[in-house]
Amino acid sequence: MLNATIITIGDELLIGQVVDTNSSWIARLMLSIGIRIKRRLSVGDVREEIVEAVDSCFKDSDLIITTGGLGPTEDDITKPVLCEYFGGKLVRNEAVAQQLRDFFEKKLKRPLSDRNLAQADVPDNCIVLENPDGTAPGMLFEKDGKYLISLPGVPHEMKTIMEQKVYPWCRKTFKLPSIEHQTLTVYGIPESDLADQLKDFEQQLPYGIALAYLPNYGMIRLRLTDYQHQTDVLQKQFDKLKNAVRSYLLYDEDLSPEAFVIRYLEKHNKKVAFAESCTGGYLAHKLTALPGASSVFDTGVVVYANSTKRRLLKIPDQILETEGAVSEETVIAMLNGLFNEHKADYGIAVSGIMGPGGGTPEKPVGTVWIAAGSKENMLTRKMNLRFNRLANIEATYIHAYTLLIQSFT
Amino acid sequence: MLNATIITIGDELLIGQVVDTNSSWIARLMLSIGIRIKRRLSVGDVREEIVEAVDSCFKDSDLIITTGGLGPTEDDITKPVLCEYFGGKLVRNEAVAQQLRDFFEKKLKRPLSDRNLAQADVPDNCIVLENPDGTAPGMLFEKDGKYLISLPGVPHEMKTIMEQKVYPWCRKTFKLPSIEHQTLTVYGIPESDLADQLKDFEQQLPYGIALAYLPNYGMIRLRLTDYQHQTDVLQKQFDKLKNAVRSYLLYDEDLSPEAFVIRYLEKHNKKVAFAESCTGGYLAHKLTALPGASSVFDTGVVVYANSTKRRLLKIPDQILETEGAVSEETVIAMLNGLFNEHKADYGIAVSGIMGPGGGTPEKPVGTVWIAAGSKENMLTRKMNLRFNRLANIEATYIHAYTLLIQSFT
Repeated sequence: MLNATIITIGDELLIGQVVDTNSSWIARLMLSIGIRIKRRLSVGDVREEIVEAVDSCFKDSDLIITTGGLGPTEDDITKPVLCEYFGGKLVRNEAVAQQLRDFFEKKLKRPLSDRNLAQADVPDNCIVLENPDGTAPGMLFEKDGKYLISLPGVPHEMKTIMEQKVYPWCRKTFKLPSIEHQTLTVYGIPESDLADQLKDFEQQLPYGIALAYLPNYGMIRLRLTDYQHQTDVLQKQFDKLKNAVRSYLLYDEDLSPEAFVIRYLEKHNKKVAFAESCTGGYLAHKLTALPGASSVFDTGVVVYANSTKRRLLKIPDQILETEGAVSEETVIAMLNGLFNEHKADYGIAVSGIMGPGGGTPEKPVGTVWIAAGSKENMLTRKMNLRFNRLANIEATYIHAYTLLIQSFT
Repeated sequence: MLNATIITIGDELLIGQVVDTNSSWIARLMLSIGIRIKRRLSVGDVREEIVEAVDSCFKDSDLIITTGGLGPTEDDITKPVLCEYFGGKLVRNEAVAQQLRDFFEKKLKRPLSDRNLAQADVPDNCIVLENPDGTAPGMLFEKDGKYLISLPGVPHEMKTIMEQKVYPWCRKTFKLPSIEHQTLTVYGIPESDLADQLKDFEQQLPYGIALAYLPNYGMIRLRLTDYQHQTDVLQKQFDKLKNAVRSYLLYDEDLSPEAFVIRYLEKHNKKVAFAESCTGGYLAHKLTALPGASSVFDTGVVVYANSTKRRLLKIPDQILETEGAVSEETVIAMLNGLFNEHKADYGIAVSGIMGPGGGTPEKPVGTVWIAAGSKENMLTRKMNLRFNRLANIEATYIHAYTLLIQSFT
């Protein structure tokens, strides 16, 4: 397999201002065409550190992809440093200059400053990779049969150049193996127990087929990868795996829970609604972050206060008073509110205590009640989460969507 | 300044399954006590790569922090690799074993398997850093006056050990400089224009004081850092900076927009509500992700369909028909719906087309209307975003919260 390295460049990565989401996105795209990322590295906007990183990565990588440090401000030095490293000089590129003029005139609708026009000065020893979404073009350098691709750090600009230029270039330039995956999702068994249960299965896997565990708050994705292009063998092992985990199987595709929900509801021409207390809109956000949400989703209500629960979901006062807002009775009443007041076919209702405050001895922080399903098949689940506020919200999203999926069957 | 390196370990980081959020969190915490992260590195669960990474980082770092590879499954090898690297051997640690028994019995409420009990086998040449939230303890190794700290990769476990053990240990062990920051937030000026405008200010900054730009979709945080402990000098420069950017200044504290909103509304004893079409719950989520949200927030409605907009916000049919759902008139009617139907003091209403589908020649993908404010002071804003769906949602969050903040003054 071809070895590649990702170097993300920028002081903001080292002082923790920015979470590096570029690396994992690039890694996924590269792996999909059989290029293995051997190492990821982040360095600051410092000449020596950039040079040292490139030097060390060229030792064992055929391809280096860098992001960042291409902006118009003084601190961005990736372009001159790489230009010098590969022995070139900066020259004005008229095609890039024209693209910049168009970009400012038509997209940004403001004048092009000299500072921005300087983005058209590119090394004379690289292939320019046009950036249709921004001002900093990508660059492709070659040295002794090894390649370095430098891309802007702005995620959507980087992604466009990767998809439009780098991806097809890699497929054209390198002889790449074909890699296939099959993925399934289970719920309700701890990772270590599952690993024990699958020990024999793992040991008998044929050469070239590997199993990976991807746990995420009670949900585990299991992925079989075939590095040897033995499609039938992969399928046979996948069927075996499905059988081995059948009591925990949620679905046997490589989809997020919300993507699975959208596909299922689309197919059955049904709509889902959300009644969220402690998740505060996050469940609705996860669904609506996907294209296609509008065909299965009309309504979500974030009902933080009891008065709002009463007003928007017609929760009887008596339930809130005797059982409290965090109770099985309340989430069932919330779910019924979605069916009765908001005409939903399916729904998820959650109420809980995410912390750090709000816990009591009977209902400590992390207590969450979930109800999900349809009028005909309502399921409930109680969680005792033990994370911080954000992680409790994230975990509840997993436990809530998996409960809805369980109600489908 | 003390140099440190972060090494995150795990195949999942190299195949893009997981976004590494640990590194930036650790970097922020370390920087807050004057420890500079010189480099970040991610390697797979491979013996040689772990050893090589540690070797290379010890060349120029006094402290290495690693996360990951400490789980109970076969692929996790960080513990034995480090144990051997530092010349120790694994021995059963009774205190850890007892903590594991308690953890399974009291928190997880399931039996402790042999596989999990093996987490109590720790190198005899390290200091054990107790992990109250999980099964893999942290480890602190020393070699020739340099240190390596190995932590689990699960974010909330890593964070607890960092806060409870590593942070106080660093302050005790190293002589650290004191570093101070002052941060302000501006909106409505492109980064390159701002950089031009602040050129003179930057050039006159005294030695030891540095300015950083942290742009985020139209909002830019400007941070002055004082590396020399000259508090008065920092304050003077900060006042100068505030004056230089006063026409764009949103607020002069180191807060996210939603944190600023919570604090402002708490102080004025007011409540905010959200009416979200295209952001699908994300605005409510950003607020409710913070502790303290419940004191300023009761109600959010996700009104994806026109019928839901009518039902929950009483948008007149005529507006939806003549102006369309994505229009200034509609978001104003949505905001009024929050005031009239949901008793909000302040509100944000958004409607737009996030893509990839749904655009028309008159209203292309990326068209977003926002209304925000109070009954007395409603502001509207039209955006023409040019990102992908998720980035359009993220950008709208910034543009919407900043509009609400502008309505406060």
